[in-house]
Amino acid sequence: MSAPLHPNLAPLAGLLGTWEGRGRGEYATIEPFEYLETTTFGHAGKPFLAYAQRTTAADDGRPLHVESGYLRVPEPGRIELVVAHPSGHVEVAVGELAGTTLHLRSTVVVGTDTAKSVTSLERTLELDGDVLRARLSMAAVDQPLQGHLTAELRRA
Amino acid sequence: MSAPLHPNLAPLAGLLGTWEGRGRGEYATIEPFEYLETTTFGHAGKPFLAYAQRTTAADDGRPLHVESGYLRVPEPGRIELVVAHPSGHVEVAVGELAGTTLHLRSTVVVGTDTAKSVTSLERTLELDGDVLRARLSMAAVDQPLQGHLTAELRRA
Repeated sequence: MSAPLHPNLAPLAGLLGTWEGRGRGEYATIEPFEYLETTTFGHAGKPFLAYAQRTTAADDGRPLHVESGYLRVPEPGRIELVVAHPSGHVEVAVGELAGTTLHLRSTVVVGTDTAKSVTSLERTLELDGDVLRARLSMAAVDQPLQGHLTAELRRA
Repeated sequence: MSAPLHPNLAPLAGLLGTWEGRGRGEYATIEPFEYLETTTFGHAGKPFLAYAQRTTAADDGRPLHVESGYLRVPEPGRIELVVAHPSGHVEVAVGELAGTTLHLRSTVVVGTDTAKSVTSLERTLELDGDVLRARLSMAAVDQPLQGHLTAELRRA
C-alpha cells in the first residue's frame, strides 16, 4: 500500500511483508504434525498492521489453520493484538517488544458455544533479519499452557 | 479456491464472492458520512466462510474501516460469526437465517484496554439476487443500540 507508515509502527516495520516457511505443531492431546505457513503483515497508513496467517499440511498440502486480525500500536510503545480464528475463537492480547522480539500474551480468549475451550494464548515473534521465528503456546481443552506451534519463516 | 463447498455452507453459498457498493454511516455522537465498501466471502472447503470488509470515504477515498473474520456453520443450521476489528475489538455472534436474510447478534464484544467501549453489535445481511444489503447496529460509548451503517452492495 502506498500510504506512509504510521510513526507508531516504526518499531514493528521489520514485520511488514509476506513470510513463508515450515513449522511443527504438538500438543498433549494430539500427534505432532508438520506444516507450511504463509504470514503477511500489511498497513494502510493507520497505527495498526493487518495480520493474516495460513498453514497447510507439509505432507499433502491440505489446508490446516487460518487466522486474521490486527496488530495495533495505538500509542508509541503500546502494542495490542486482536485476532479471529475460524475455530470459533477471538483473541485479545497485549505485547511487549524487547529488541526485535515481540511477546504477546492474551488478556481474553473467548469462543462461540460450539468452539473447543481455549483459555490462554502466548505468541513470540522473533525477527532476525530476513528470518522470523514464530512460537505459539496455548492452554486449551483442560491442558495447562504449553508449546503448540514453532515455525521458522523467511521473507518471501 | 478449488475445494468443493462444505455442505453446511449451502444455505450461505449466495454470499460467496466480492461485493462492492456504497453506504451511509450515522451515530448519535458523530456527523453522518458516506462510504464505499468492498466485502468478500471466500471458502477453502471447510465449514466456514472467510469474511473481510473494507471501506473508504466517499468524498476523498481515505481508508475508513476494515474488519476480518469467519462466518462458521459448525453444524447444519448453526451459524456463528467471529470478527477482529482494528479499533481493538473482537466480536462473537450467533446468526439466524430467514429466507435469504441473515441476522447476527453479538454474544460477546470485548476490546483492548485502549479501545472505545462497544457493548453490542447486530448485523443484517439481506441477499436479493446480485444485491446484498448490509446493516449494522451498535451499542457503544454509553449509547443504546442504534443503527450505525447501511450499505447496498452489488456483486463485483
